[in-house]
Amino acid sequence: MDLLVVGTVAFDDVETPLESVKDVLGGSATYFSYAASFFTTVHLVGAVGDDFPQEHLELLGAQGIDFSGVKRIAGKKTFHWSGKYMGAMNAAETLDTQLNVLADYRPELPESYKTTPYVFLANGEPVLQLSVLDQLKENALVVCDTMNLWIDTAPDRLREVLQRVNGLVINEDEAIMLTGRPNILEAADAILGMGPGFVIIKRGEYGSYLRCSEGQFAIPAYPVTSVKDPTGAGDSFAGGVMGSLAAAGATDFASLKKAMAYGTVTASFNVEEFSLGRFQQIARSDLDRRYQEFVEYVSF
Amino acid sequence: MDLLVVGTVAFDDVETPLESVKDVLGGSATYFSYAASFFTTVHLVGAVGDDFPQEHLELLGAQGIDFSGVKRIAGKKTFHWSGKYMGAMNAAETLDTQLNVLADYRPELPESYKTTPYVFLANGEPVLQLSVLDQLKENALVVCDTMNLWIDTAPDRLREVLQRVNGLVINEDEAIMLTGRPNILEAADAILGMGPGFVIIKRGEYGSYLRCSEGQFAIPAYPVTSVKDPTGAGDSFAGGVMGSLAAAGATDFASLKKAMAYGTVTASFNVEEFSLGRFQQIARSDLDRRYQEFVEYVSF
Repeated sequence: MDLLVVGTVAFDDVETPLESVKDVLGGSATYFSYAASFFTTVHLVGAVGDDFPQEHLELLGAQGIDFSGVKRIAGKKTFHWSGKYMGAMNAAETLDTQLNVLADYRPELPESYKTTPYVFLANGEPVLQLSVLDQLKENALVVCDTMNLWIDTAPDRLREVLQRVNGLVINEDEAIMLTGRPNILEAADAILGMGPGFVIIKRGEYGSYLRCSEGQFAIPAYPVTSVKDPTGAGDSFAGGVMGSLAAAGATDFASLKKAMAYGTVTASFNVEEFSLGRFQQIARSDLDRRYQEFVEYVSF
Repeated sequence: MDLLVVGTVAFDDVETPLESVKDVLGGSATYFSYAASFFTTVHLVGAVGDDFPQEHLELLGAQGIDFSGVKRIAGKKTFHWSGKYMGAMNAAETLDTQLNVLADYRPELPESYKTTPYVFLANGEPVLQLSVLDQLKENALVVCDTMNLWIDTAPDRLREVLQRVNGLVINEDEAIMLTGRPNILEAADAILGMGPGFVIIKRGEYGSYLRCSEGQFAIPAYPVTSVKDPTGAGDSFAGGVMGSLAAAGATDFASLKKAMAYGTVTASFNVEEFSLGRFQQIARSDLDRRYQEFVEYVSF
């Protein structure tokens, strides 16, 4: 089934201990849509400025991603993020954020997108996530992400979002911050009480954890020996998860587990290069091969 | 096959956010031997002072642990550790350590212990670990633990130990400290270059990671909702691992993986009460039941 993602398309500056890049293609919806495109047809909604090269969009198009929902806004610049990773590159330090075109952007779904059966609301202002929810026709399976900024500055709106989505994908520290619980087991419990039918907690190099009404599940990360740039790992993971779910047309416990394993291997490729560099070198068969290696890695 | 452990027997004072205890039975060899006793016959070597109640030793004896290698030293007090856990109880802060009887104790193996086929050298001064290695007859399968203190103060002796053991069980941050590598994948690689045929890296609530010549393997922790006291979790994990290996009489890749899963569930019981409180309530069948739940928890 088709999958819709609403999120950011960006230029990123990234510093790592070994190498730095400037103005590379990034953004939550970019990573998500490319990751999900290995599994199903993706429709992308976002905004860019008139500085955004058409070839970036064509790169997504060549992967089968429908980017007709990406609005190019004249007289504006594309969203720009600068970040830095130190040491083991476990966490990004944001150096600068230029909202640019996103400052007053309100996502509008093309009519044909409003009935997409699977929807992902990438990390963004809860009020924008709510406006997307308002535009959707009934019965979509909607999953969202969020971040510390919105937990801090828009807790009430975020609660409204959570009451209206089917699933939440969230970082470990943000799950703890959102719920005020001391560990992810209790945090996941509290999150189910806020509305979502399932929550997937991302733990970076430690893997991920699922909680839903049918049970709980955990997997380690795939052991990537050459992490070049962790930017987009979380969005690539979510893209693999949602792509797998949409392709299966199912969100039962077994499908969620399998989707998390696919999200894990999808993210493991993404971190091996800057921007979409590694994704551009692989095909679905590479994901499937690494999926089998991952099954071996965790089996006993 | 039989299993020998050389380590500490202690009195612990433990503070947690909810409850505190004083002078409870603790020590690396205590936790290890009780954990391993669910799997095989354990011989315990250590020292206590004349303040140590005989009933503590009998509690171990009732579990089938051979404590004839525990030396009671007149005129000395038993080793005493005081620690405190805050918040999510991820790490202990040591408040006080009284070596007491351990200040000039040198472990001497009873003659009959010197041919024990499986040996665990719990965390301790590398020079003492070396003296135990010197007393062993050929062909034992020896695994050791260590800690930041010895990595800092006795790096050369520790390197000697590592050249002479078959396996190392070590905490994540200590593996990184020992090797100077930025992550556990590289650290594990470096550790294999130091001598051990396998290394198991303990990651607390995130699980554990195995590296050996045949491959690598990772499992999450068992999801314990009511952690009361993490003291002894690492030693209980090691006890479960070594107990399982000794019982199987094998240390091939498949046996190591299974042993880690048993170590995981063994440790998960230990943290549910202070001291040996939870262990005293369970039998091997409880471990096996939770092992099956754990298999379910990580399967997809």
